[in-house]
Amino acid sequence: MSTYTAINLAKRPYGAAIGPELFEVVHLPIPTPGAGELLIKHTHMSLDPAMLGWMSPATDSYIPPVDLGSVMRSSGFGVVVESNHPDFAVGDQVQGMFGWQERVLSNGTGLTKIDATLSAELVLSVLALPGLTATQGLYRIGQPKAGETLVVSGAAGSVGSIVGQLAKAEGLRVIGVAGGAEKCAWLIDELGFDGAIDYKAGNLNDQLEALTPDGIDIYFENTGGEIQNLVFARMNAHGRIVVCGHIADYLTATPAPGPNWMNIIKKRLTIKGFTMPDHFQDAPALLGLLMPHLMAGKIQYRSHVLDGLESAMTGLNLFFSGANEGKLIVRL
Amino acid sequence: MSTYTAINLAKRPYGAAIGPELFEVVHLPIPTPGAGELLIKHTHMSLDPAMLGWMSPATDSYIPPVDLGSVMRSSGFGVVVESNHPDFAVGDQVQGMFGWQERVLSNGTGLTKIDATLSAELVLSVLALPGLTATQGLYRIGQPKAGETLVVSGAAGSVGSIVGQLAKAEGLRVIGVAGGAEKCAWLIDELGFDGAIDYKAGNLNDQLEALTPDGIDIYFENTGGEIQNLVFARMNAHGRIVVCGHIADYLTATPAPGPNWMNIIKKRLTIKGFTMPDHFQDAPALLGLLMPHLMAGKIQYRSHVLDGLESAMTGLNLFFSGANEGKLIVRL
Repeated sequence: MSTYTAINLAKRPYGAAIGPELFEVVHLPIPTPGAGELLIKHTHMSLDPAMLGWMSPATDSYIPPVDLGSVMRSSGFGVVVESNHPDFAVGDQVQGMFGWQERVLSNGTGLTKIDATLSAELVLSVLALPGLTATQGLYRIGQPKAGETLVVSGAAGSVGSIVGQLAKAEGLRVIGVAGGAEKCAWLIDELGFDGAIDYKAGNLNDQLEALTPDGIDIYFENTGGEIQNLVFARMNAHGRIVVCGHIADYLTATPAPGPNWMNIIKKRLTIKGFTMPDHFQDAPALLGLLMPHLMAGKIQYRSHVLDGLESAMTGLNLFFSGANEGKLIVRL
Repeated sequence: MSTYTAINLAKRPYGAAIGPELFEVVHLPIPTPGAGELLIKHTHMSLDPAMLGWMSPATDSYIPPVDLGSVMRSSGFGVVVESNHPDFAVGDQVQGMFGWQERVLSNGTGLTKIDATLSAELVLSVLALPGLTATQGLYRIGQPKAGETLVVSGAAGSVGSIVGQLAKAEGLRVIGVAGGAEKCAWLIDELGFDGAIDYKAGNLNDQLEALTPDGIDIYFENTGGEIQNLVFARMNAHGRIVVCGHIADYLTATPAPGPNWMNIIKKRLTIKGFTMPDHFQDAPALLGLLMPHLMAGKIQYRSHVLDGLESAMTGLNLFFSGANEGKLIVRL
């Protein structure tokens, strides 16, 4: 009997790095689809910072954590290898919440069929969660206007890089915050950002002041950390802050305090958090905003591909060290 | 020649109490209105927490500070005593930004005529800045819905007391935060709040938990301080935070940090600051929301009246000690 590999969550992380000790690798017989079912060969698995929240102890957050002993949650891309389902044929490309496993038995619920001309990297790096998230946050909350200044943290990440490129396409001045000279060079030289701040290089406020002479109208927050306070202090009147991620604090026992709120009054700021599960029904409208820019060649991306399901267990740490270069994808 | 008294700002406060040493009291000849001008006898002057900002060194805030040597800024109520202006007759009641002075020479700009049946206390305590501010913040930002829970800090203040009563009229559960047993009793017994938290009594979180068993949907912030963090942690998904005032930090050199932003994402919160000068053109619409509740007897108020212009110089400290009982008004 043929088998496939799956990885279950075995323990929850408590302020420590993510590693194999938190997981259980299991080998299971490949199932045979019944009536109305299909079998998917999972080929590309997305790794996302949100996974840290899904692994962590239950809070009253927007989505429940993964149960211990259950397959770890993830979104992925695959191909139909057997089908008894009228809507899916063998060879169809599909996307969905597949989890950390090489095969997925499905009744079709939650599956999205993907046109054969679109690559797994493009789908997972742009058209799925990263692009939807960037578009929802930038347009619906950020309300970008040509001539304004936008700062985005986590700018070399999958969401941040799309936010910045969309804002450039809309005529804004765009400054990215990223870790390391290579990422900063990529933002400026390849993506066309107006400037980049290396948060590992020190003198953050000097860098920020020099690059935002007219203040900041929109801050797209992916990280938290020191830059948050500095950007907050430079917000212009009626500025908008999109709170999308806060990776600096995802694994800390005592999260850092935020800025004092007086500036919210003085500058009449709007600060708004969001998570995509509230907005999945808007995906067609969001893609309608994103696709023209993608088709015009204005949205570049890069994928950081790891090989083999088991690489996911340590791969998540790349988010915290900032060592990933582009969208993290595990090729199965 | 008859004279009147005016008070100029002479020094800026730096983290200290407000007192006569910051002001210069002057006596000036009463002017005679020229063509198109009128003379107002200023009878009731409003004292507001915002005055602290107006006295403080220039920041890039929403309104410039008062120049040293100029009459201190304030809104007030008065009666026309001489007029060469076609729109104003002797005996008319008027309201405007009169400043700390007993007489005001005006060309009519910025003046609002007040119906003779309305008292100065009602106008300054409800229909002017306090009511407009409460209505703008609660309805336009707070988006109240029957059955939700609202917490308001500075609840016994002029804005907070109206916010709470409007929210009660809209069918919300309303909890006020105020200083001292007398104010808390007033909120519950006279204004009909569902509960009150005495921030001077300690055990703030125990009080808050007991009074908000279903969490908090709207927080109307007038004060900052410890309660901010506690309320923030109990916000429900899609909660709204209206940031109207932050009196705990107006005179501090090093304002207290705010809460960590992760909860903004987890709960998809909206936090929005505002100041009324952005919205004065909406006054008719705001009064349209406020007046039905006032006419139905659902908006009570109390005024804390000081006597004589010079009482303003120390009266401002009542905001910081929380010793004012109702809207602070100086009767001239």
